Formats: sequence, C-alpha cells, structure tokens
Amino acid sequence: MNEYRVIVVGVGPIGVACALAVAVDRSLELVGMVDLDPAKVGRTLGELSGGNGAKKSGPVVVDDLEKALHGGADVAVVTTSSKFDKVAPTLQRLISESVAVVSSCEQMVWPWYRHRELADVIDAAARRTGCAVLGTGVNPGFVMDSLAVTIASVLHRVTSVRCVRRVDAGLRRSPLQAKIGATLSQRQFRELAGQGGIGHRGLAESVVMLAAGLGECVEPGAVCESLEPCLADRAMQSALGLISPGEVCGIHNVAHWRSGELIIELDLTMAVGLADPKDIVHLDGPVNLSVTIPGSVPGDSATVAVLINHIPIVCNAQSGIRTMLDLPVAGCRGRDGRG
Amino acid sequence: MNEYRVIVVGVGPIGVACALAVAVDRSLELVGMVDLDPAKVGRTLGELSGGNGAKKSGPVVVDDLEKALHGGADVAVVTTSSKFDKVAPTLQRLISESVAVVSSCEQMVWPWYRHRELADVIDAAARRTGCAVLGTGVNPGFVMDSLAVTIASVLHRVTSVRCVRRVDAGLRRSPLQAKIGATLSQRQFRELAGQGGIGHRGLAESVVMLAAGLGECVEPGAVCESLEPCLADRAMQSALGLISPGEVCGIHNVAHWRSGELIIELDLTMAVGLADPKDIVHLDGPVNLSVTIPGSVPGDSATVAVLINHIPIVCNAQSGIRTMLDLPVAGCRGRDGRG
Repeated sequence: MNEYRVIVVGVGPIGVACALAVAVDRSLELVGMVDLDPAKVGRTLGELSGGNGAKKSGPVVVDDLEKALHGGADVAVVTTSSKFDKVAPTLQRLISESVAVVSSCEQMVWPWYRHRELADVIDAAARRTGCAVLGTGVNPGFVMDSLAVTIASVLHRVTSVRCVRRVDAGLRRSPLQAKIGATLSQRQFRELAGQGGIGHRGLAESVVMLAAGLGECVEPGAVCESLEPCLADRAMQSALGLISPGEVCGIHNVAHWRSGELIIELDLTMAVGLADPKDIVHLDGPVNLSVTIPGSVPGDSATVAVLINHIPIVCNAQSGIRTMLDLPVAGCRGRDGRG
Repeated sequence: MNEYRVIVVGVGPIGVACALAVAVDRSLELVGMVDLDPAKVGRTLGELSGGNGAKKSGPVVVDDLEKALHGGADVAVVTTSSKFDKVAPTLQRLISESVAVVSSCEQMVWPWYRHRELADVIDAAARRTGCAVLGTGVNPGFVMDSLAVTIASVLHRVTSVRCVRRVDAGLRRSPLQAKIGATLSQRQFRELAGQGGIGHRGLAESVVMLAAGLGECVEPGAVCESLEPCLADRAMQSALGLISPGEVCGIHNVAHWRSGELIIELDLTMAVGLADPKDIVHLDGPVNLSVTIPGSVPGDSATVAVLINHIPIVCNAQSGIRTMLDLPVAGCRGRDGRG
C-alpha cells in the first residue's frame, strides 16, 4: 500500500505538518526526518507534534541527511529555507541518490530567476540521475501564479494580470507574524527589511512564472518590487504580543513587470487583523475574467497540502527541475488511512 | 515561425472561430478545413467568416478529410459532434496519419465513461502512431471539473464538491439557445429531451473527471443526472424568437454522485435572461474553499481559446488519449500576428 517512501527535511511547523500528513496517508510511508536543531534530534513525530494523531513509533529526527538516506527513499519534502542557494546542497545530495524532491523553498518555484547557473547545475544533475525536483507552495506556487495561468487557459489573449492577495496574518503561526514585522516600529521594520530579514519571498518568482505561462520571458532583475509596512490603526493582539497603534502589523508587497504586450501586477497584503481577506485573480484582454476566493487560500494548511499532493506527481515526472507549469494538476488524490 | 500545421474539422460557429484564431496566431498555420455542408465546401475562411479579420487566401473547405490530410498536418481541431462514437472514425483517420487531436467533443473529455471499449481502441491506436488525443472545452473540460481539481491541489482532503454554473444563454449563439430548448413548450421540451435532442452534454463526464482528480473511480452509469426546463416568468427575446411567459427559456441540469468518502454535485443552469450569471466551485473538507467567477466563464470564446491554447500541449504530450488531468496547464502562450 505504501507507494512512496518519504523523508522530511526540516521539521519546523510546515515540516512537522507535512510529516503528519505523510504518516496518515495510506500511499505514503514516512522513513526519515532531518533537522539540525538539537532540541528536535532524536524525537519521533509523535513527540514533535505533541502526539497529534501520529504514532509514537516511526523514524526519529536525525541531524544528518546521510543517516536518513541510509534506508532508502523515493522522495524528500524539503522545508528548510526560502533561498535556493541555501537548499542547493541538500538537493544535490538527494539527487545523487535519485531521490525526487518537493520543496516549499520560495525561490525554487522559478530558480532560474535569481540563480540561473545554480539552477542549471541542479537541473543537469537531476536529469543525470533521473529524478524530478519541484518548488511549490501557495504563494509562490499557486494563488498568484499557476492558478492565474490555469485560468488564462480559457482566454485567447491576455494583456494584463492583476492578482491581489489579502491575508489576515492574525490567523497564522508566529514565524509568519515575525516575517511580516508584527509589533515592530516603522524604523525597526525598515532596518530589518533593508537587511532582508523581513518580508515575503517569492513574489518576483510568481511574476516570472505567470509571464512564462503567458508566453513571455522575464529577464533576471526585471521585476520591480516594493515593500511597505502596514501600520496598526488600533491596538491589537498578535502571537508576538500587543501591537500598539502606529506600530507595524504587517506588510504590503507589490511586484510589477511589463513588456510591450503584457502587464503583470501582484499585490500582496499580509497583516494582523486585516479585514476582508481574499484572493483575486483578474485577467484583462479582449475578454476579461475575474476569480475570487473569499477568505483567501489558507496559507499554512494549503502549503502542506500542495506539497503532499505533489509527491506522486514528482515521483512520476520527467527528470530535472520542474515547475508548476510543466506538471499535470495534482488534485487531492491521497486518502487518510483513517478514511 | 509556424510551428504547427492545423486542420479544422467541422466549421460550425466554434470551428470557424477556431480557424480564425489559428489563422492569426504566429505559431500556427491553417492548412485545411473540413465540413460536409455543401454550402461551406469550396469557401475560404475569409468567406466563411464574412471577412472577419482573416485573409481571403488560405485553404478552402473540403468535404473529405483525405483531401485535407494530403498536404500533411501536425494537429487537428475537431468540432463535429458531442458524441465520442460519432467522432471516432475521424479520430482514427487522423491518428493513422500521426496527426494529434484537440476536440470540443463533450464525451471525449472522459471517453471511457460512456465508451470504454472504443476509448481503449482509440487510445491504443494513438499510442501506436505516437500522437496525443484530447477532449477539452469549458464545460465539460474546465469550469466544473479540471478547475475544481486544480483548486483541490491546495487541500489536504476533500469530502464534497459542489460546482454551480449559471449562464445567461441570451448572450450566446443560437445553436446553444436551441440546445437548451428556448421558445419550446414544456411538452415539446420533455419530448425532445426524452429523445436526447435537447440538453447539455458532458456533465457526467465532468463528475467522473473530478472524482478521478480526487482519487475516486466512478463506474459507468453511476452518475445520476436530472434535466428540467427553466420557464420564462416574463416575455423575453431570444435568438430563436419571442419566449412567452410559461415557455421554456433554458435548462437546469444537475449531476450527482457519491461514494463513502466523497460527494460531487454539479448544478448547471443555462437560460435566456438568467440573472446573476456566475461560476462557483465549492470544496468541503477539514478546510473549505470557494472560488467564484462573476459573470461565468464565457462559453463560446473560452471554448475556442481552450482548444487553441492546447494545440502546443497535445503536440508535445505523451501519446494516447489524454485528459485535462494528465497534461500540464496550457496557459495562453499564443500571440496574435498583429501583436
């Protein structure tokens, strides 16, 4: 029944949730977990997740990928970093063992944009050993890029795309609230943003994927991005403590690109207490089409779902670096063992 | 520049629109048109379309596929019938020449549901000659099936799917208005519906595709369908003449299927003068997700677009009968030569 043996690399909140999803799926078998955090090493999934539905048996977290690879695996779910160059050594080791990869690494949804040469190296290595490597997620990976391309399939010509995503970060885990600068002052926000220690990753990669799905090629560095703080207009609670009026409660991140024939604008707001959360994909051309997802796609559970749903897809995909544009739709074919 | 040589088989309204789209696309070349209608045979696309943007030169309509195949072709757009068994001889002839196929044939989006053996025959033939064959469209093909599967990709588990499509048929071409029984009496509607001469095709096929994308297999005949007339509550104009109060202005077509773990309901209304046209995909499970397309995906232009956008996809696909579930997203990569 267990078609694919899965290693989870990185057991932060998303990694643990992925491991839990693997553990309860009849077609998957959790064969390894890897994390450098000494507080996690040696623990089972049941211990990591507070016994949340998982068996107490099963693999324990190891601090070295070699140990996890020892028993063999078909695919790894990699949730260690947003940056492709940080993930690359892990990818190379997995690829060398012909282990396919699904990763939430944001830059990896279109790795050529920021790391063209490294992407070519990884791609060639994966082709040599016959395994596929995919970066995916909700944003980037779905709601502001591949979903928009899917909808464009029913249009003859698209001249402009505008995607809006409004997320109430108050409903999200604390690392995300930290990522968007909740509780910071404006000055602290700008300092941290300047150092790259804050903000969302992957908006430019979404633009590039979207453009590719509409037949356009974006040159490296050609996407314009802006990042501004959202300021609290009232006192509000966050997972990181009280946010006073005038302090930062989130981010407003806009990415923009245009060619002679096409304009793309992605407008992302993630803020604690944000009213009217939703996703909108709006495509303009001779025929216009708008798609709305009230409440917005829930970032955390959906990221886990999209990673797990793509396990059978990457295991059967053509080898090399794949993107959401060249794989068949994943759907949701898994079934809980409890089902 | 012309990557793919295209034959259009069937030059009704959709076929002519496809041929026009091919003619203006820099990556496509219109090399043939086929139709049995003596009034169309010998005419150029410019003549068929009233000079609507197309060159007066180019191929003329022939009444025999052999003549159109004479000069060679890469792919055929087939818009001749809703029924797979009616289209099958055309498919077999095209396949024998290794010509890939994109078709609007409704049953062909999941041909195994009503014609399992014939589908296997066509599939085997296409594999032998190395070409891919795809049935697609808006409904079936997109809005009540593959789009829902795409959205399910970000959910961990789906227990119920409800798709609602409300189309204002007053905005559509007259063959569609005839198909939904506009201007008929209730009695005439039921007689024609009993003979299969009225109604929408492909709702059951959408259910089967949707179920497949959610990991479930629907047995032939297992989808329950109902077809009811919508009655005019006021006098209204249609392309077929005045509809008096109490006469038929459209259809309400519902398809339903359930297994132990999954419920699918597709609810389609197509009626002249229908208020609040829209598409809704609603997925239920531990996490719910709803997607709304205000105004609804425009049936005619979108059908043409989805056929044309899939030309490069089928030309590069694995051979055999393909479905929207096993092909990469098409997007909208074509560019007008005028662009």
